[in-house]
Amino acid sequence: MADELRFPTGLGTSDADSISLLGQDLAADLMGRVGFGELAFWLVAGRRPSAGEVRLFEAVLVALADHGFTPTAIAARLTYLSAPDSLQGALAAGLLGGGSRFLGVTEDCGRFLATVLASAEGDDVDAIALDAVTTAKAEKRFVPGLGHPVHKVEDPRTPVLIRIATEEGIYGPHLRLFEAIGRVHPQVLNRKLPLNGAGVCGAALADLGLPVEMLRGFALLARAAGLLGQIAEERRRPIANDIYLTVDRNAVYEA
Amino acid sequence: MADELRFPTGLGTSDADSISLLGQDLAADLMGRVGFGELAFWLVAGRRPSAGEVRLFEAVLVALADHGFTPTAIAARLTYLSAPDSLQGALAAGLLGGGSRFLGVTEDCGRFLATVLASAEGDDVDAIALDAVTTAKAEKRFVPGLGHPVHKVEDPRTPVLIRIATEEGIYGPHLRLFEAIGRVHPQVLNRKLPLNGAGVCGAALADLGLPVEMLRGFALLARAAGLLGQIAEERRRPIANDIYLTVDRNAVYEA
Amino acid sequence: MADELRFPTGLGTSDADSISLLGQDLAADLMGRVGFGELAFWLVAGRRPSAGEVRLFEAVLVALADHGFTPTAIAARLTYLSAPDSLQGALAAGLLGGGSRFLGVTEDCGRFLATVLASAEGDDVDAIALDAVTTAKAEKRFVPGLGHPVHKVEDPRTPVLIRIATEEGIYGPHLRLFEAIGRVHPQVLNRKLPLNGAGVCGAALADLGLPVEMLRGFALLARAAGLLGQIAEERRRPIANDIYLTVDRNAVYEA
Amino acid sequence: MADELRFPTGLGTSDADSISLLGQDLAADLMGRVGFGELAFWLVAGRRPSAGEVRLFEAVLVALADHGFTPTAIAARLTYLSAPDSLQGALAAGLLGGGSRFLGVTEDCGRFLATVLASAEGDDVDAIALDAVTTAKAEKRFVPGLGHPVHKVEDPRTPVLIRIATEEGIYGPHLRLFEAIGRVHPQVLNRKLPLNGAGVCGAALADLGLPVEMLRGFALLARAAGLLGQIAEERRRPIANDIYLTVDRNAVYEA
Repeated sequence: MADELRFPTGLGTSDADSISLLGQDLAADLMGRVGFGELAFWLVAGRRPSAGEVRLFEAVLVALADHGFTPTAIAARLTYLSAPDSLQGALAAGLLGGGSRFLGVTEDCGRFLATVLASAEGDDVDAIALDAVTTAKAEKRFVPGLGHPVHKVEDPRTPVLIRIATEEGIYGPHLRLFEAIGRVHPQVLNRKLPLNGAGVCGAALADLGLPVEMLRGFALLARAAGLLGQIAEERRRPIANDIYLTVDRNAVYEA
Repeated sequence: MADELRFPTGLGTSDADSISLLGQDLAADLMGRVGFGELAFWLVAGRRPSAGEVRLFEAVLVALADHGFTPTAIAARLTYLSAPDSLQGALAAGLLGGGSRFLGVTEDCGRFLATVLASAEGDDVDAIALDAVTTAKAEKRFVPGLGHPVHKVEDPRTPVLIRIATEEGIYGPHLRLFEAIGRVHPQVLNRKLPLNGAGVCGAALADLGLPVEMLRGFALLARAAGLLGQIAEERRRPIANDIYLTVDRNAVYEA
Repeated sequence: MADELRFPTGLGTSDADSISLLGQDLAADLMGRVGFGELAFWLVAGRRPSAGEVRLFEAVLVALADHGFTPTAIAARLTYLSAPDSLQGALAAGLLGGGSRFLGVTEDCGRFLATVLASAEGDDVDAIALDAVTTAKAEKRFVPGLGHPVHKVEDPRTPVLIRIATEEGIYGPHLRLFEAIGRVHPQVLNRKLPLNGAGVCGAALADLGLPVEMLRGFALLARAAGLLGQIAEERRRPIANDIYLTVDRNAVYEA
Repeated sequence: MADELRFPTGLGTSDADSISLLGQDLAADLMGRVGFGELAFWLVAGRRPSAGEVRLFEAVLVALADHGFTPTAIAARLTYLSAPDSLQGALAAGLLGGGSRFLGVTEDCGRFLATVLASAEGDDVDAIALDAVTTAKAEKRFVPGLGHPVHKVEDPRTPVLIRIATEEGIYGPHLRLFEAIGRVHPQVLNRKLPLNGAGVCGAALADLGLPVEMLRGFALLARAAGLLGQIAEERRRPIANDIYLTVDRNAVYEA
C-alpha cells in the first residue's frame, strides 16, 4: 500500500534550505512583498489577486472585523476568563458563534445572489431582482442582506464598498444585483429596508470570484482579528467577570 | 443595580448613521484606507502602526500562515470531512492545536527574550545571551527558537525577517538578543543550531511592542488564513478521507 | 433597568449551605443516588427517567461512545499532540466533527421518523414506511439509518437495542416505524440494507421522548467519553505523531 | 513503508458481524449491561471498575455536572444563539472554558495531593499536610481545593463524597490527606477555609486510581451533560439574547 499513499497539495512544502508556498519561495518572494490579506485571498482562491482586488478584499475584512459586544465577542471574553492559559480556546469559542445568525449573512447573501444569477435570463437587472424578491416572499424566506437592527435607513459600509469596487474596476454582477434588490424590494415588501454591510460584503466577495462555500471563512478570518482585539482589551480592562456576575446575581430559580 | 452596569470598551460602537472602530469612522476612515494586517495590529496594540511596522508585521503573518500538512491542518481537514456544514468548526478545530508544541514557539521565544532583557545588565548583548543560554541549560530548559527538524542549518525566514526589520528601522533589542543567542549558543550547547522562523517571528513581534501574552494570538491569526487555504483545497482536492482510511485500515487491535 | 434583569433557570442554584439542581438537593438527594446517565437525561428532558428508560438511554450512550479511529478520534489525537497543555481543546476539536456526516445520523434518523409519524394516517406501519421510503427516493434523499459501510448485512447493535426497549416496555412508534422501514425498503430501493446502529439509537432516543433537536447532543455526550478514552490511550501509546508523519512524508507537491 | 504502518489501539474495532470495545463484544456484553459512567471510567483507565468505584465515580460526575450560570454555561448559550445550526459548536465553546480557573481545581487538587504523597515520609498524615500547606504558603502558591466564594463554611458536596468513598471501601490516601489539610491549614493560614467540592472530587478521582493528567477530562465529561442541559433550557426558555442586549446596551465607549 505504501506506494499508493499520496497526499497531494498545492499549498506548502519545504526542504532543508527553502520553503515553498503556493509555488513561490516563501522567504524570497512572499515575506515583505505580499500583504497578509493578499496571501489569505491567494491561499483560498488559488490565484494571486490584483492590487485592486486586494484593496476591495481588505476593505471587506476591515468592515467585518469587529462589531462591538456581539454574542461571539462576549463568549470569547468569558472563555478567556475561565481559561486564560489557552488563548486559542478563547479565540475558537468566539469563532464557533460564526454560524447562521450573527455571522452567516455574508455567505447567505453571496450564495443567494449567485443562485439568482445562475438561472437569470436577460439583462434587465431590476426585473431579475424583482422576480427574486417576489419568489423569496412567496416562499416565506428572507432576502439575505436586507435590513439592520441599528442602521435602519442606511448602513454606512454599503456605499463605501460599492464605491471602492467601482474605483477598482471590479464592480460586477453580484453587487449590481444587490443594488437592484435595494431599489425594487419596496414594491414587494411594502417598506424600504437598507442594504446591510454583511450583505454587501458577500456580494463583493462573490464579485471577486471567491467560492461561495468559503465566504463564511472570510467573515471568520476578519472576526479572528476582532476577537483578538476583544481578548487584548479584556486583558487591559476586564469586563467578563462583571458580565458573569450580572447574570448570576440576577438568576431567578424556577425549578 | 442598573445604573451601575457599565461595560467599557475602546473598540467598536455604532448608532443609526455611523460605525466607530478604534475611535475612527469605520466607513469613512478605515475601509479602503487601512489594510487588514494594519487593523489587526491596531486592534490588539491599541495604537496605529507605522507603514514600516505594518510591513514587518505582515511579513511575520505571511511567514506563519501555512506549514503544509501540520497536525493542525490535518485536524481541520478531518473535521471538515466529518462536519462540512460547519466551516467554523473545522477552522476552530485547527486553531485548537495552536498550543505549546506546534504553534507556541513564537510566544515562548518572545517571552523568553523579554524576560532575559528585563533583568539584563550592561550593553554586552553576547554576554547577556551567553548567560541566558547557560542558565537555561543548567535548568534543563530548552532555549525557544533554536533548532528546526527540517531546516537544520538555516531557516530561510530568519535572515529575511531580520533584513526587513533593519530596512524599516525597527530592528530592536529582542531581535538583537536573538541573533546573539544564535552566535553564542554553540559555546554552551556544543553544537550549532539554526535560529528558527517561529522564534524570529516572536522576536520581531516583541520588537514591535506587542504584548508578549498576545503573541500566540498573531500566530493563530496567521494560521487562520492558512487553515482556510487547507479547507478550500480540501474542497477542491480532498485527502481527509484517505487519511482516515489509511489510519483505520492500518489499525492493529491490541486489547 | 436593574429591576427588570431576570435570567430564569430551572437547573441549578446555590446558597451558602446548599446546592440545588433540578429542584433537588444535590448533595443529599443526587450524589450517590442518581447515575450520571440518569442525570444527563434529566438535565435535558427536564424530567426524571424511570429505571427502564435509564437502561435504554445508557445502552444508547454505550453504543455511540467509540467507533475506533474515526476522523473525530484522529482529530482529537492530533490536537492533543499539538497542544497537550489543553485537554479541553483536544476534546472540543474531536466533538467539532460531530456534524452532519459522521455523527449526525442519530439526529437525522430521529427527526425523519418523527416527521413521518407527525403526518402519518392510519395504523398500518408498513404502509406508512413504504410511503416514506418511496417519497424519499422520489425526492432523491437518503433514508437516514439505512446501510453501513462495514456491517453490510446486520448491525449488531440494532437487534440489541430493540430487545432492550422491548424488555423495558418502552418500545414505541419510532422504533416500530424504523423496523418497518427495514422490512419494506427493498421493495422500493431494490436491495436490502441493514438498519444501522446510529439510526436505531435515534429511534430509541425519540421513543424516550427526548427532543429531536437535542438528539445530536446525546451522540456528542457519548462521544465525549470515547474521545477521553482516545486521548488517554494517546498518552499511554501515542500514534498521532506517526499519523502526522505518514501524511507529511507522503505529501506530493503540485503547485 | 506500507508494511510498517501500524496504529495500535485497545479501544474499538469491528468487522462485518461484530463490534469490539475494550476487548468486549459491544452489543452482547456492554449494551444494556454496563452503565455509561462505568464505560467512561473503563475507557480512560483501561480497567473495569467495581460497583463501588462506579458509585463514587458517578457521584463525582453528578457533583460537577452543572453549577448554574457559570461563564462556560453563558458562553455555550451565547454560541447557541449565534449558531443554532451547530449544537456541537455551542457544546465545544462551553467546554473550552474548562481551563485553569473555573474547572481546573479538580485536576489541580488531585495533582497537588499526588505530588505531596509521592515524596511524603512517615504515616502522620497531619504532619504531611502541615508541611505541604506550609511549603505552599512559603512559595506563595494556593492550596488547591481550599475555599469557595459561596460556601464559606462548608461545601455540602465534600462530606457526602467522603461518606460514599467510605461506604464503598475506597477511601484512600488522597482523600485522607485532603481531610488532613482541612484540619491543619488554619494553623498556617490563620483562617478556616472549607474543603471545596471541586477539590474533593479531584481527591476522590485520584483515590480511584485514575491518571492525574486526565482528571480535568472527567470534569469536562460531567460538564458536557450540564452544558447540554443549559442548551436544552436555552431552547425552551431563552436568555442568551437578553444577556447580549444587557451587555450591548450598557456598553460605554471610551476610545
